[in-house]
Amino acid sequence: MSETPETQAPANERADHPLDAIFHPRAVALVGVPSSEGTGGAGGFFTSLLEQGFPERHDGQIYPVNPKLDEIRGFKAYASLLDTPDPVDHVISLVPARVVPTLVEQAIEKGVRSIHFFTAGFSETGDAEMANMERTMVARLNEAGIRVIGPNCMGLYVPSEGLAFMNSFPKESGNVMFVSQSGANAGDVVRGLGMRGVRFSKVISFGNGSDLQAHHFFDYAISDPETELVTSYIEGVQGGRKFFDALHALARVKPVILLKGGLTGAGARAAHSHTGSLAGSTQIFDAVCRQVGAWRAETMDDLHDVSIAVTTGLRNVRGRGVCLVGGGGGTAVLASDALATAGLDVPPTPEATKRELSEFIPVAGTSINNPIDTNMGDAATTDRTLRIMARAENVDIIVTNVSLGRDADRPDADLEALKQRATDQAERLARLQEECGIPIVLLTRGVPHAILEHTAREAYRCGIAAYPTIHRAARAISAILEWRTRREGLPLIF
Amino acid sequence: MSETPETQAPANERADHPLDAIFHPRAVALVGVPSSEGTGGAGGFFTSLLEQGFPERHDGQIYPVNPKLDEIRGFKAYASLLDTPDPVDHVISLVPARVVPTLVEQAIEKGVRSIHFFTAGFSETGDAEMANMERTMVARLNEAGIRVIGPNCMGLYVPSEGLAFMNSFPKESGNVMFVSQSGANAGDVVRGLGMRGVRFSKVISFGNGSDLQAHHFFDYAISDPETELVTSYIEGVQGGRKFFDALHALARVKPVILLKGGLTGAGARAAHSHTGSLAGSTQIFDAVCRQVGAWRAETMDDLHDVSIAVTTGLRNVRGRGVCLVGGGGGTAVLASDALATAGLDVPPTPEATKRELSEFIPVAGTSINNPIDTNMGDAATTDRTLRIMARAENVDIIVTNVSLGRDADRPDADLEALKQRATDQAERLARLQEECGIPIVLLTRGVPHAILEHTAREAYRCGIAAYPTIHRAARAISAILEWRTRREGLPLIF
Repeated sequence: MSETPETQAPANERADHPLDAIFHPRAVALVGVPSSEGTGGAGGFFTSLLEQGFPERHDGQIYPVNPKLDEIRGFKAYASLLDTPDPVDHVISLVPARVVPTLVEQAIEKGVRSIHFFTAGFSETGDAEMANMERTMVARLNEAGIRVIGPNCMGLYVPSEGLAFMNSFPKESGNVMFVSQSGANAGDVVRGLGMRGVRFSKVISFGNGSDLQAHHFFDYAISDPETELVTSYIEGVQGGRKFFDALHALARVKPVILLKGGLTGAGARAAHSHTGSLAGSTQIFDAVCRQVGAWRAETMDDLHDVSIAVTTGLRNVRGRGVCLVGGGGGTAVLASDALATAGLDVPPTPEATKRELSEFIPVAGTSINNPIDTNMGDAATTDRTLRIMARAENVDIIVTNVSLGRDADRPDADLEALKQRATDQAERLARLQEECGIPIVLLTRGVPHAILEHTAREAYRCGIAAYPTIHRAARAISAILEWRTRREGLPLIF
Repeated sequence: MSETPETQAPANERADHPLDAIFHPRAVALVGVPSSEGTGGAGGFFTSLLEQGFPERHDGQIYPVNPKLDEIRGFKAYASLLDTPDPVDHVISLVPARVVPTLVEQAIEKGVRSIHFFTAGFSETGDAEMANMERTMVARLNEAGIRVIGPNCMGLYVPSEGLAFMNSFPKESGNVMFVSQSGANAGDVVRGLGMRGVRFSKVISFGNGSDLQAHHFFDYAISDPETELVTSYIEGVQGGRKFFDALHALARVKPVILLKGGLTGAGARAAHSHTGSLAGSTQIFDAVCRQVGAWRAETMDDLHDVSIAVTTGLRNVRGRGVCLVGGGGGTAVLASDALATAGLDVPPTPEATKRELSEFIPVAGTSINNPIDTNMGDAATTDRTLRIMARAENVDIIVTNVSLGRDADRPDADLEALKQRATDQAERLARLQEECGIPIVLLTRGVPHAILEHTAREAYRCGIAAYPTIHRAARAISAILEWRTRREGLPLIF
């Protein structure tokens, strides 16, 4: 992976892979666009493409299809897919399932490359007739060389092309791919990690996975120059051996984080209703991940947190010795408990280091015996403390708190000034992380909501891993250490 | 406990207990107020008292003491405690440890009731001489009938009297007491739970606990009409048998949630540096809590979350059957996993209930087989669904999502309109909770930061328990069920 999240492959570097064209359509038709505006449901796709600037990036080649309308939101509406200009590379199907057979024939006649079926009501319903219809339509399209995404899914988010399936997704590209059997979870990842500064190369919600499945996208990710980390949510392993082989090959060259839904009885039942998936056991799935060197996230928060860890300076952590700086006495006690419970150490400050610290830190109301709990007034004193601790022989990582000054909680606080302080702290910590050669982790607990997103994003931009609580930080640090152990011997160690 | 968090004892109802006077000083002197304004450190106490309106509530009887100044922030400054008007009931000591012996003699001469020593640098330093000085000063003060809070602590937050020790604490009183050996953790609780709508009767940060200790405040809480839930953070059990007896007596009449710091080796070491405490083992502490029917929170988040549970409709949950409504397919799968992992059930919807639902919920893209994943457009349809599910024989509790409309994530969203929707939803859910007789829990994941606090507070105001993630909700539900089992047989079952 690159040294900082900023260094990314230029958007025009493309993967030499048969699936690549799917992510780069010259023109898109949305069949079944409703007249209503809005950001959800079928109408939301058009809104999202407009918001992401798809028309501007593609000479206006976006074609809403609705036989009852002449115009939708300033764009000419077409009566059928066959009436749209040529070429149309990608079709988004928003029509009901009963209309799909007609659309399939039109797509073949039109010569499109790919169809994404938002349309649901197929195999996931458990209805044998609809399952059969799904198989038939996919076979028909594949025969004609057309690839299918879905049905029952949200499709593609490719910021470099202006493709998106929900509103308010970041417009900038990034280095993280997310391959998801669920649209809601794709939204959670893009928005949740997006608020923490992560940006995406491609996000695919593939639903029932009748044609394209996780293993196809894993295979693509291997050669995608934009993608440096692959994350995935799956409910059922599709393709069996192909899934395993693609995951194995991918994990050899790029870090992969997998979240499996349906690992309990209740979850498996829900997964079956959702995408018709038959979920497997935790043990088997965990064994597969261990074997190939992928990381199995236990929860969605884990997926978020480990993604942050592996794309920031935290990925370089080499040992279990944590130095805690700041936060107040009782907070430091609970933080020490949390770190120890996660299998990390909070080693006592070495005597020589204590002597260095006591030169400028007073005794009353403070502790210099890791956790370091001092009333550090200014940035210079804080930096001096952090630099000294970073050199201590038993310290592998420093965990510290966002420090915005004591007036940050006031209702009349100057938000712009606080944001600037958050930026300044992130940049200072990044310089220290660079200079000291050990990771620095930032805790954002207690940061006012109004500037939380800014604070987390600025930390990430500077390569500093930020977490909302010490427990989540501790889990992420442990995860990186354990994951790296598993990956020893693989050609690429992150 | 009262039916809703709104019903509280009037502020003028007072406990018939010797400690009560400490919480109701007629006048306060701050000795050692620095000239600097600001909200932290020694200067922060004056700021907090002014902000909370202590002077307005007490005829201006607040006396800053600093021999170098004539006036501080518009208030006359006094050269010594002996120069202040009579009476002075409570002294806040902000002077360095070496000045404390003089202050002690002055306090005795002045005839004050209580002193809070923010002053640190005593027994917690490990220095035998300072520990001796601490013992001597407390003995001297106690002899004169003066009670001591601290040293090395933040003191009192009593909103009904305008007493506070950090800025931006809520001005309204509430029904939750927090007894804390740590000032930082007291701040975390007041601000963190405060943002979620909880309000406090009394919060005490007692630090080293040289005189007044947790057991004194537990004993007081028994007869305090303002207090309905007692929460506490302690590092070392002080008073031995007295601690156990007071906790036992308190837990018989009011719910008590305890968070113990220093339960790991690293945490115990930090606790020793912080308050000089010798921490005990998890097993012993856990056994004590079980025996008396108190709840041991494992983390600070647990303390927050169980406090929410026991002061909202969630405290009435009677069984493990959870119905999940909304959130999208993949989210519902992960939520089911989270609930099952926490030992809860997500039972399939009974056939008769399914028939009722299928009368108005379409099949495509939905699931009515708990988790209920439907694209519910309007409030009426949502309410109808919730009402039907609440009547299902296997459902003991409903967990649902904040639903602010699909445009809530847009950067140009009308925040006031969103807030109104959050309020409306909270009030609707409260009516349903009341009508159906089973608790409703609200998940706030994905709510934009700008309205998160409003959304959580409004839910709490309406008696609806709100949690940021399904994992935290699941833990809280499990906790209530387990805790109630422990409390069967106690005179008061919450």
